[in-house]
Amino acid sequence: MVVSVPGRYAADVAEEALDLGRNVFLYSDNVPVDREASLKRKARDRGLLVLGPDCGTAVLGGTGFGFSNRTRRGRIGLIGASGTGLQALLSYLDGDEAGISHAIGTGGRDLSAAVGGITASQALDLLRRDEDTDVLVLVSKPPAPEVTRRLLGEARAAGKPVIVCFLGAAPPGGGWGNVWFANSLEEARGYALKALQERVGASPPTTFSTGGRWVRGLFSGGTLALEILLCLGAVLTPVYSNIPVTADQRLPDPLKSQGHTILDLGADEFTVGRLHPMMDFDLRLRRLRQEAADPEVALILLDVVLGDGAHADPAGELAPGIERALTEARAAGRELAVAVLLIGTAADPQDLQEQSATLERSGARVVRTVGELVEHTWRCVGERPRDPAETALAPVPLEAIRDTRAVINVGIETFAASLAAQGAEVVQVDWRPPAGGNEKMAALLARMKR
Amino acid sequence: MVVSVPGRYAADVAEEALDLGRNVFLYSDNVPVDREASLKRKARDRGLLVLGPDCGTAVLGGTGFGFSNRTRRGRIGLIGASGTGLQALLSYLDGDEAGISHAIGTGGRDLSAAVGGITASQALDLLRRDEDTDVLVLVSKPPAPEVTRRLLGEARAAGKPVIVCFLGAAPPGGGWGNVWFANSLEEARGYALKALQERVGASPPTTFSTGGRWVRGLFSGGTLALEILLCLGAVLTPVYSNIPVTADQRLPDPLKSQGHTILDLGADEFTVGRLHPMMDFDLRLRRLRQEAADPEVALILLDVVLGDGAHADPAGELAPGIERALTEARAAGRELAVAVLLIGTAADPQDLQEQSATLERSGARVVRTVGELVEHTWRCVGERPRDPAETALAPVPLEAIRDTRAVINVGIETFAASLAAQGAEVVQVDWRPPAGGNEKMAALLARMKR
Repeated sequence: MVVSVPGRYAADVAEEALDLGRNVFLYSDNVPVDREASLKRKARDRGLLVLGPDCGTAVLGGTGFGFSNRTRRGRIGLIGASGTGLQALLSYLDGDEAGISHAIGTGGRDLSAAVGGITASQALDLLRRDEDTDVLVLVSKPPAPEVTRRLLGEARAAGKPVIVCFLGAAPPGGGWGNVWFANSLEEARGYALKALQERVGASPPTTFSTGGRWVRGLFSGGTLALEILLCLGAVLTPVYSNIPVTADQRLPDPLKSQGHTILDLGADEFTVGRLHPMMDFDLRLRRLRQEAADPEVALILLDVVLGDGAHADPAGELAPGIERALTEARAAGRELAVAVLLIGTAADPQDLQEQSATLERSGARVVRTVGELVEHTWRCVGERPRDPAETALAPVPLEAIRDTRAVINVGIETFAASLAAQGAEVVQVDWRPPAGGNEKMAALLARMKR
Repeated sequence: MVVSVPGRYAADVAEEALDLGRNVFLYSDNVPVDREASLKRKARDRGLLVLGPDCGTAVLGGTGFGFSNRTRRGRIGLIGASGTGLQALLSYLDGDEAGISHAIGTGGRDLSAAVGGITASQALDLLRRDEDTDVLVLVSKPPAPEVTRRLLGEARAAGKPVIVCFLGAAPPGGGWGNVWFANSLEEARGYALKALQERVGASPPTTFSTGGRWVRGLFSGGTLALEILLCLGAVLTPVYSNIPVTADQRLPDPLKSQGHTILDLGADEFTVGRLHPMMDFDLRLRRLRQEAADPEVALILLDVVLGDGAHADPAGELAPGIERALTEARAAGRELAVAVLLIGTAADPQDLQEQSATLERSGARVVRTVGELVEHTWRCVGERPRDPAETALAPVPLEAIRDTRAVINVGIETFAASLAAQGAEVVQVDWRPPAGGNEKMAALLARMKR
């Protein structure tokens, strides 16, 4: 059902549609956000969709709703909290001859904390299951942090490439696994085309668990710590650091970790009267021991930076400490993991291969890029892909987006005309405000109906 | 000269080096920021470089300074306000067998408002002129806004591809022309390799001027307005909007533009009691006339969104208004330009080609993507590429980064050993704090020297 009556009546009309078992394209704006949330919770419980309120655009099963463009059919599925964002992508992808499977609008507030991204999650789940969709694109203004975390977890588990474009947010890196971050709609278009050609990142990640909960990062390189903090801050909570990106990430006492903690041990508070931690491993070894003794710690991250100026044998300094930490944890009946980001070149004086081998012999996992380290961390302590049954999410039947030939239109009549012109069977409902728009009278009538 | 003496003495040592006509690699930290700024201004006036203070890493002419990696020679030039950021890139690019020409560290505060990115600008200019460098990479934490604007202008005019990675900042789009925005060091690496292969974006943009100063954007699509605001906000000033991204962008009176103004005419304050501006062009036509009458306006931006639900002939509605605006401006002896972002598909009911032709006949420039619109805008009202002579910038001779075999080392002795191991001729200066570290005595001595 397409609903475009004035905002103060729209939620009631939409709710009636849900009660009749209909999916709703809710164009109207000025619907209170708590009504939006309750409508969407009701829809979710019944396996129905509410696109909107304030949803400008959708293309479902080849039929365009609201403001939409007639786009060639293809294998890219779009999810958008913005109308013209979706329309720009339709326009771009039609020009590329790539085409789209579906474009699902969610309404601009869907990804707020109050609504919690209910429709976006349903849309991700639909396009994940939809056989006509090979690549997903999610475009929105920056969501609430907790919604970002959940959506990125769901995207990571989608089993298909997902291009994420949160316009105006600092992206948590270039991407990882099947999730790529685009900075603009055009970049999202480009990544989607690339993913379509390459069919990359199609398998969901395997996860592992050490039993602990927290990751602790002990870095000598400030920029490495920052990059990892930017990435992990988007998908884990709570995250603390001595180089916080957001105010709530500030670690109260740099000497004591809490929750997930990422430390730059080269920062002033750690280096006063000491050599840089690339040269002197004393501080890192003591902190490594401290973190390893915490039974809630699952994973410890370290960096080793080789090259001129650095210690002559960093792996030799760290390996005994890593080995002891792992042995002591095992002796205490705990699993603990250590991962090391190794930065250096084959020509560096320390012998890259030998350094790597020494670290691996100590029991550490050795990776060569920040992206690999983040991926490893997420697989250990990130959100697990959720079983729909477990989360009590009633899956929306795929017919909701595939079978869109029969539409009821309540409100703006040109929408009915557009739908009919596209070949849909449209029933235009002759809607009038209850009691002719007289609210006192309408309230009386509503009470009498009970 | 490599300077790594304690911070409170380091600036004096560096200044002596400048007075002797030497370039300075200043490893020391804890140098006051005003001393950093005055040192760098002095260096700039003399065509010398000060890398640092708090500069961890540089590779100049194959010689590594401070903490650095022995990286194969190649054609990618790096500029970094961070040490381990540069080292990670060295490590990545060596593994890719791409290699680097030079890696120029600037120190972490170089891109602050207080220092103004003096060293980064010098480095951009050096690598622009350096025949061994085909692609530039600039990595930093987010610079001060005014420094971002200047550096992006210089990058745009570099005549070579420039990959920009401001870690933790919301990037102003995917890139434009020869400037690409990376979200992580790995993405910067990937873009640099791609640019190296494709040799793209090598020619500096041609600019044009209408004589006016300001751009005014009148958009019906909120996300289109937002994307353009994100892009232009990074390179133009002052920018105002009714959908501000930063607090200082808020337009006091939505009915009156000032400076550069980007409006979302679909926002609530414009649509109460009106149809959406995709359906009703009355408001846009009146505002177009208002902006065109402002003699300080150089360029007016519009969007036209075709498709179902939209007006049956948007170009027919807008074209007469555009034509009149251009004619009246010309009659008043002014140049004015209008550019239209046209969103739609070939199958849309309005006839894409015909809409485009109608708009072009009215005198507007028609573009199909946000990126093209931003590029067009920048060419009209953006910062002009600056002639070094005009800005009184003494170019640093290329020998500063090419000819690095003779080094004076003042401070940490292992740096001298590393340099010697790389085959440099090193003179180790036996430095002691003035008056044995007694500051009162040192001040007396300094006064006696005058």
